[in-house]
Amino acid sequence: MLQDICVADLASGVKMNGFACKAAANVTAEDFFSTSLSKPGATNNSMGSKVTGANVQNMPGLNTLGVSLSRIDYAPGGLNPPHTHPRATEIVFVMEGQLDVGFITTANVLISKTIKKGEVFVFPKGLVHFQKNNGDVPASVIAGFNSQLPGTQSIAATLFAATPPVPDHVLTKAFQVGTKQVQKIKSRLAPPPPKN
Amino acid sequence: MLQDICVADLASGVKMNGFACKAAANVTAEDFFSTSLSKPGATNNSMGSKVTGANVQNMPGLNTLGVSLSRIDYAPGGLNPPHTHPRATEIVFVMEGQLDVGFITTANVLISKTIKKGEVFVFPKGLVHFQKNNGDVPASVIAGFNSQLPGTQSIAATLFAATPPVPDHVLTKAFQVGTKQVQKIKSRLAPPPPKN
Amino acid sequence: MLQDICVADLASGVKMNGFACKAAANVTAEDFFSTSLSKPGATNNSMGSKVTGANVQNMPGLNTLGVSLSRIDYAPGGLNPPHTHPRATEIVFVMEGQLDVGFITTANVLISKTIKKGEVFVFPKGLVHFQKNNGDVPASVIAGFNSQLPGTQSIAATLFAATPPVPDHVLTKAFQVGTKQVQKIKSRLAPPPPKN
Amino acid sequence: MLQDICVADLASGVKMNGFACKAAANVTAEDFFSTSLSKPGATNNSMGSKVTGANVQNMPGLNTLGVSLSRIDYAPGGLNPPHTHPRATEIVFVMEGQLDVGFITTANVLISKTIKKGEVFVFPKGLVHFQKNNGDVPASVIAGFNSQLPGTQSIAATLFAATPPVPDHVLTKAFQVGTKQVQKIKSRLAPPPPKN
Amino acid sequence: MLQDICVADLASGVKMNGFACKAAANVTAEDFFSTSLSKPGATNNSMGSKVTGANVQNMPGLNTLGVSLSRIDYAPGGLNPPHTHPRATEIVFVMEGQLDVGFITTANVLISKTIKKGEVFVFPKGLVHFQKNNGDVPASVIAGFNSQLPGTQSIAATLFAATPPVPDHVLTKAFQVGTKQVQKIKSRLAPPPPKN
Amino acid sequence: MLQDICVADLASGVKMNGFACKAAANVTAEDFFSTSLSKPGATNNSMGSKVTGANVQNMPGLNTLGVSLSRIDYAPGGLNPPHTHPRATEIVFVMEGQLDVGFITTANVLISKTIKKGEVFVFPKGLVHFQKNNGDVPASVIAGFNSQLPGTQSIAATLFAATPPVPDHVLTKAFQVGTKQVQKIKSRLAPPPPKN
Repeated sequence: MLQDICVADLASGVKMNGFACKAAANVTAEDFFSTSLSKPGATNNSMGSKVTGANVQNMPGLNTLGVSLSRIDYAPGGLNPPHTHPRATEIVFVMEGQLDVGFITTANVLISKTIKKGEVFVFPKGLVHFQKNNGDVPASVIAGFNSQLPGTQSIAATLFAATPPVPDHVLTKAFQVGTKQVQKIKSRLAPPPPKN
Repeated sequence: MLQDICVADLASGVKMNGFACKAAANVTAEDFFSTSLSKPGATNNSMGSKVTGANVQNMPGLNTLGVSLSRIDYAPGGLNPPHTHPRATEIVFVMEGQLDVGFITTANVLISKTIKKGEVFVFPKGLVHFQKNNGDVPASVIAGFNSQLPGTQSIAATLFAATPPVPDHVLTKAFQVGTKQVQKIKSRLAPPPPKN
Repeated sequence: MLQDICVADLASGVKMNGFACKAAANVTAEDFFSTSLSKPGATNNSMGSKVTGANVQNMPGLNTLGVSLSRIDYAPGGLNPPHTHPRATEIVFVMEGQLDVGFITTANVLISKTIKKGEVFVFPKGLVHFQKNNGDVPASVIAGFNSQLPGTQSIAATLFAATPPVPDHVLTKAFQVGTKQVQKIKSRLAPPPPKN
Repeated sequence: MLQDICVADLASGVKMNGFACKAAANVTAEDFFSTSLSKPGATNNSMGSKVTGANVQNMPGLNTLGVSLSRIDYAPGGLNPPHTHPRATEIVFVMEGQLDVGFITTANVLISKTIKKGEVFVFPKGLVHFQKNNGDVPASVIAGFNSQLPGTQSIAATLFAATPPVPDHVLTKAFQVGTKQVQKIKSRLAPPPPKN
Repeated sequence: MLQDICVADLASGVKMNGFACKAAANVTAEDFFSTSLSKPGATNNSMGSKVTGANVQNMPGLNTLGVSLSRIDYAPGGLNPPHTHPRATEIVFVMEGQLDVGFITTANVLISKTIKKGEVFVFPKGLVHFQKNNGDVPASVIAGFNSQLPGTQSIAATLFAATPPVPDHVLTKAFQVGTKQVQKIKSRLAPPPPKN
Repeated sequence: MLQDICVADLASGVKMNGFACKAAANVTAEDFFSTSLSKPGATNNSMGSKVTGANVQNMPGLNTLGVSLSRIDYAPGGLNPPHTHPRATEIVFVMEGQLDVGFITTANVLISKTIKKGEVFVFPKGLVHFQKNNGDVPASVIAGFNSQLPGTQSIAATLFAATPPVPDHVLTKAFQVGTKQVQKIKSRLAPPPPKN
């Protein structure tokens, strides 16, 4: 940070690390404000969970400030599947329900715990982690990040639903399964067809 | 960060920037977990608000990870008085009630807004900011920080209740008031006597 | 820093974190040079002090380099009132006279000392600090910062002279004084009317 | 970096972010030197590849310096399976043979290419990437990292061979496969039994 | 890094710290790839060595990623003369031959060693270092850097062949030699005349 | 910085990046204070200049704060010979006299200027720079740095007076002079014999 604020000019034609700033005269309190987390996300999908973000892409005042929030909603049985954030540590506060959460270190040790309403857990920067709602009622968390745009790599989708696809022979060898099995997973994780 | 995790050994005799790490063999999931935010803080004080933190001091797994959370509770009329965090930007999510919030830039411009349940606002690193509950019911927020220990300088207390005290002649000149007035504020903001 | 130098193009229409760089062909030694500190600042104001900066705004070669200097002049009795620099630590060298200086930690401890010609003192990043000339003769310091644009929040002016104003009810509660008292301070710290 | 060098004292009882430094008197040129990459790694394993590192753990002079190297050897058909480095970007130079390499962005786009002896490719920090030797002869690369200890999360092993194990119900839902399939992958990726 | 990738738009009219990014639609795998190191550099020059870089200037995908590579080729007797990289630590892997290498600390201690094919050595950020091929056969290394553009100050050329020249009286005093001697070195290190 | 202050415990047996911190109970205002710059340094040496530092080594409160100061005194004709600071940009304010100053970029361009009392000039991080007093009277500057311990490599001494010495054959080739000439410079720049 080289000045107090640098509100993202999301429409600027000049692309850079982060975003160009709006002219100071155009900055308002709305730039530092978001309503995007005010409603639960729709969890009627194959994972039974939904991540909704308040980051620099919809809250331009966050540019250069190094923080963002998400809310994550989980149906009963819902999973926020194993993923990494390449640019941030994540710390969650349970608003409702309870979750089984965990992260895996580079020494391949799983550190996991059941957390309930009002409790807090942290997932260190860059490490694979997940949350699962094994309860009977919906759950939700607020997640804080030390990045204006943490990014997410959802592991299964990254490997089995990228465009263009990761070659089958990479996945069969990595997971020690057959091509048929790889293609089955690919078909199940395929991105939904674009809407008209 | 030079390794995945470095859980604070809060009892170590060796002091350093942050904290020394516990031996890996002693690390457990409890280190990455906190219940400190699970209950509302007591707001029956002169400000009518209470900040409760989940930071490296009570959640040792946060050491080197660059994040922390607080919950802030506000009675009706309660104020989290003007303050700065020398080491962090703060982003708040309103869990309950509504708040009048604002920060002031180094160009002395106040950026303020009324925010309600489910809404998000950000206070840039190092700038003076405040939240006031002008509603009839209690309010609360979860606040995310990009520091394991953001630190807080509550402006009025910093100037009028430090130990040893800031000299009266500094304060009379800074605020352009008389010595009597400075002493009155000092007496009202004096820290409570230590408990036996 | 991703290159040797990136001299600020202060007139660029593209705003960013810091400044866009001038074309290399237009860079000269003048860009790395400033005369702005060569004369004492005028101290005939209500505080009896004047801060004059040599930072990226008037010395464009400082862009991306992470340093700046100020000189501060103090009349006898003059005060550089309590303030913070959100983006820098400050280290001062006394050129003339003597000063009572101090900073307050987030544990609300005042660390203070009288410093004389040739002596050095440091004010840690983001913490409230002040200098007062309690001597009979003028004083001056050179102050070094680890930021190209440290920014300054002069506490009394930030709270009592912002535009738009911080609401009275925030200030009465924060300082535990009456509205009349707040309005009196506001009137005394009001920015001078614009010149024609 | 706060001094020229801080050679890791790998045996120090004090753990910290990175490592404590050896006394200056004990530093020698050997600390900045390694022979660990001088011989090809053994590739007769299930992946047909072997990563050998020269990092702070076996080259203590790297402490605080922010770099390390690895060599990777690949049998014909060998795969360095999809993985991330939580703390580093990786840049490879092909010493021998040819490789099909790729990384996937957080927008789920695969960026891939075939690279040959003498060619260079980069894998951005934190993103999933892989290299596969689809040629008939062995291949090898030298890989540079901007971390003294980049860390590696090999995705399949992280999910299917952690200790304690990631629960089956997390993996079945994440990959949309049955429990039997998950258990088959787990058995194939299980770490080899410890040697006596 | 505030996003996954920011491929340098080397032709952008907007200059900044690093480079502006290309539009995402124009990014290809070629941006993360380089052939510039595939052939030995020509060593038939006065130093008998040649540094060839794969950095952001010819591999635009490196922008914001914090790494680069060079290859250095040495004729028998060839020297990569004493120099610094203001923005990077360097770690070398010997591909061929053997080298006498060293760096000097700010305490004026030379740390040096003979390194051979397959061995690794590190030169800490900003410190003067050199490599000399005292063997009978050519040598070459791959060098990794933790900067997208490390920069190089070759000491003798910096002092004796800058444009405009460093004044003779600075150099005579610094090296405690006569003007004639300074002028002799200047003439020998003069940059070659531009080619037609 | 992970806390307000971390005053260096210069006597700690535990060495780390920077220094271990004193116990908070032992911190006093003296830790943030120095008199080391209050008197001119002795310039009766071969260079006719003297650098005196107020850095973490004699002002322990600077630990983790990222700043330091030096004063430099110059006899008439005195030179602060070409040198680099591996860890800091330097910005100077002329207290007395006038100086010819310059730095050289990695593109081998000299940027130089004559600066007088009250004027300011900046030397970018890591680049070779010098100051020479070509006036008839003594000169002095205060120099600010963005490091608690910038480090200095005085180029001529680094190459011709290191311990153990840089081999003659490296220097003859680098400077394109004969062995006799190298040995003459070495003898003139040799460190003075240790005092009894």
